[in-house]
Amino acid sequence: MSLTLGLHRALQQTPDAVMTVYGRRTRTVREVAARVARLAGALRDLGVGAGDRVAMLSLNSDRYHEYLLAVPWAGAVLNPVNIRWSIREIAHSLADSDSRVVLVDDAFAPLVPGLRERYPQLRTVIHCGDAATPADALSYEDLLDSTDPVEDARRSGGELAGLFYTGGTTGFPKGVMLSHTNLVTSALGAAGTGFMYRPGARLLHAAPMFHLADLSGWIAVTLLGGTHIIVPAFDPVAVLSAIERHRVTEVLLVPVMIQALIDHPDLDRHDLSSVRAVLYGASPIARPALERAMAALPNAGFTQAYGMTELAPIATLLGPDDHRLPGLLSSAGRAAPHAEVRVVGPDGDPVPTGTVGEVVVRGDAVMLGYWNQPAETRAALRHGWMHTGDGGYLDENGYLFIADRIKDMIVSGGENVYSVEVENVIAAHPAVAACAVIGVPDETWGERVHAVIVRRQGADVTADEIRAHTKALIAGYKAPRTVDFAESLPVSGAGKVLKRELRKRYA
Amino acid sequence: MSLTLGLHRALQQTPDAVMTVYGRRTRTVREVAARVARLAGALRDLGVGAGDRVAMLSLNSDRYHEYLLAVPWAGAVLNPVNIRWSIREIAHSLADSDSRVVLVDDAFAPLVPGLRERYPQLRTVIHCGDAATPADALSYEDLLDSTDPVEDARRSGGELAGLFYTGGTTGFPKGVMLSHTNLVTSALGAAGTGFMYRPGARLLHAAPMFHLADLSGWIAVTLLGGTHIIVPAFDPVAVLSAIERHRVTEVLLVPVMIQALIDHPDLDRHDLSSVRAVLYGASPIARPALERAMAALPNAGFTQAYGMTELAPIATLLGPDDHRLPGLLSSAGRAAPHAEVRVVGPDGDPVPTGTVGEVVVRGDAVMLGYWNQPAETRAALRHGWMHTGDGGYLDENGYLFIADRIKDMIVSGGENVYSVEVENVIAAHPAVAACAVIGVPDETWGERVHAVIVRRQGADVTADEIRAHTKALIAGYKAPRTVDFAESLPVSGAGKVLKRELRKRYA
Repeated sequence: MSLTLGLHRALQQTPDAVMTVYGRRTRTVREVAARVARLAGALRDLGVGAGDRVAMLSLNSDRYHEYLLAVPWAGAVLNPVNIRWSIREIAHSLADSDSRVVLVDDAFAPLVPGLRERYPQLRTVIHCGDAATPADALSYEDLLDSTDPVEDARRSGGELAGLFYTGGTTGFPKGVMLSHTNLVTSALGAAGTGFMYRPGARLLHAAPMFHLADLSGWIAVTLLGGTHIIVPAFDPVAVLSAIERHRVTEVLLVPVMIQALIDHPDLDRHDLSSVRAVLYGASPIARPALERAMAALPNAGFTQAYGMTELAPIATLLGPDDHRLPGLLSSAGRAAPHAEVRVVGPDGDPVPTGTVGEVVVRGDAVMLGYWNQPAETRAALRHGWMHTGDGGYLDENGYLFIADRIKDMIVSGGENVYSVEVENVIAAHPAVAACAVIGVPDETWGERVHAVIVRRQGADVTADEIRAHTKALIAGYKAPRTVDFAESLPVSGAGKVLKRELRKRYA
Repeated sequence: MSLTLGLHRALQQTPDAVMTVYGRRTRTVREVAARVARLAGALRDLGVGAGDRVAMLSLNSDRYHEYLLAVPWAGAVLNPVNIRWSIREIAHSLADSDSRVVLVDDAFAPLVPGLRERYPQLRTVIHCGDAATPADALSYEDLLDSTDPVEDARRSGGELAGLFYTGGTTGFPKGVMLSHTNLVTSALGAAGTGFMYRPGARLLHAAPMFHLADLSGWIAVTLLGGTHIIVPAFDPVAVLSAIERHRVTEVLLVPVMIQALIDHPDLDRHDLSSVRAVLYGASPIARPALERAMAALPNAGFTQAYGMTELAPIATLLGPDDHRLPGLLSSAGRAAPHAEVRVVGPDGDPVPTGTVGEVVVRGDAVMLGYWNQPAETRAALRHGWMHTGDGGYLDENGYLFIADRIKDMIVSGGENVYSVEVENVIAAHPAVAACAVIGVPDETWGERVHAVIVRRQGADVTADEIRAHTKALIAGYKAPRTVDFAESLPVSGAGKVLKRELRKRYA
């Protein structure tokens, strides 16, 4: 079982089908396979041996797709770099993983001199952009043109497929080691629910392809023989146009992207009827936003995924039917078919239903460990279970609720205020595009309910109007005492609103 | 990843859902889990240690379901015995696998004295029938009543889950070692196509549960949280009634079972509209029979599977859409999402499209090896590929055609006659229930086209009428020169018509 399996299968079954669409560039399975076999040959010629790491630092493109196939084809190991990192973090991940060969596109080529300075072992830079190749880099297309194809150096399922650095918030990121089986198990497990990644899928890559959320969909759709519609990065206009033009059937988004789409003035001008599945992750979605998204995408089932890189990445899914039930939108869903999920106490034993404990997960998707971090690996993988570090509880139907989200409770004047409730009410205001509610220290109230709001394009609203709107719908003590307006909310690499960041600003 | 994963998941998510239906006996997930934990405790008390083999020799029942879960729960290894074997073969498989504990039902309890004689190491017999427990056996229900539940001794995915003896036609059967990951990979791969085993499935077990064809569906539906409707053995009336009464959604059958169903006089008296998927294997189906089956099951998509025990078991699938295209019914389908399929020459290199070679398969579903047969294992698993021993070719769209079926070609008077073509024509005659066409040695013609026909219940037809019917539809030289009528056709344990047996009779 290798990440290249889907390419071989497609080559055997549908060689002339379109496999990638990127701007005006369209490539069939046969073309992709020929290019991948040449790129793998080029990597070998560049001294990449079995198990060596090859990094990629790039926006989404059809060449990202080829990289994901050519590295395992060459018998090497993927290292898709987080494009949101600082140059210091990028250099750290290259050095930590010993990635001597790096592919960069036009957007990241300017970083190369700085990377070489910080990581002198960087041997070869392959420029996979469409602009002129920088002086100290090799041209991706020239390499393909000048190299003979090689045979696929298939690896067995248990071998290392890639290092996926987690966006650690403290200290330097850790390299999560995932095998081919880890990645395929999660992808097939998610597909097994029938919620999405069905055969014949036309998957839109709008979220960054380096991230496992998108990459997992890439694996499933490649295995099941679908088409990848690729845009360089999330942009509402590009996404709306791509969906309509290429009859996209499935798309992975994070809630802030969904929000941006439904708020876009061009929304109604596009035919989005082809979309049958939307997978979103990183954070729950507020009901008003979900309802607007459902109306905008009438044929789509919505699925929320919870997981982490160490789980390759999916652990639980909140499926389309669950979205129709009240009270479940704040849940992370139920264990996916391939994952066993428990909530345990400090002794490792399961806690009763409804009790908060640590979420732990078992199964063939659980990582091999952290690269060069045996102590961290031992701490995470205890008694055969991956310890997520997330607090949460299970209800009597197996729905998982992550307590980090419960922790967003604000205690103001002795009253408990759940930020998600306030956020839902504020989000229902027609002038609000996005909002986050936090507790900020307050001499009088202990904590004060504070809202940070992004206004919708062209809309205007005052703090007083927001307060009045909120008080009309929920108890007065829950209404934000203070309101700030911002251009955007701080989000993590995975698109999650970083309330920690907001709290720091107002601390 | 363990075979018990689906039980844990169901217990967490749908504890009060019905998990098994057997006659009038219905058990919820919670009840099954409690019984499985007790049965596992009983096995441990009986001295079954980690990795020990536990055999079962029984018709289908809800207790078969419990056995399949309790053995891995106890940390032991399954050995589901082929119920069609002679006592000599059964004793061989028990001795070869060192299965000291055996479960037998009412149908097989009478074999126990003979088994003890041939296999004196047999320590414990657990009687899992509903009649009185024989003197030298323990009662299944008494064991459950008197034992405390134990914790699941989960195994990791790569560990041995079961020994599955193949119905070898020469010499004694070999024990195929399959891991939990092998079994789950094939089941999830098949489910990934969306053809069948969808969430919410109500799967009918009419084919024998010891066989991997049925067992693979059992694994998928258990993982995805469905309901198992179990009948002791295939019987047209029991199957038709169970489908109607329990709103069965999916069913695995072999072509001779499909034939028996569509020929049954009660067919029209049953509402079969709940069936959405029919999986069949072991042999291709003739178009007239398929068309009648499609008419009888108007909401069902038909899927043919090709595989073998060593592949856990699925390699290729011919899906519902393929069934609508002419010329594909004789194909075994295309590689399933989890399997890489090639046709190679004696040197191990792939042969060109359309050329016959040996079918080889790779992926996480490929067996660990043959039990205690290192030389056989090395011969089967070469260069990372499972060598099936089947001859076949691939067409330009990746459809696999098994040449064993082509080998059924008869050369009569210098003309090539394809037996499947003649069989299709004969099967279209209203008085024919089943037929097999073979070549028999003939002094004049070299080979003579010979038909063995099972008449439909209550119908009558002569050899001359069959010949006239055939000649009216295809070339005269293809019509059977001789015709025999029989009560039934010889079939293998997997339900495949044994033409070899027929040829022997007429040699």
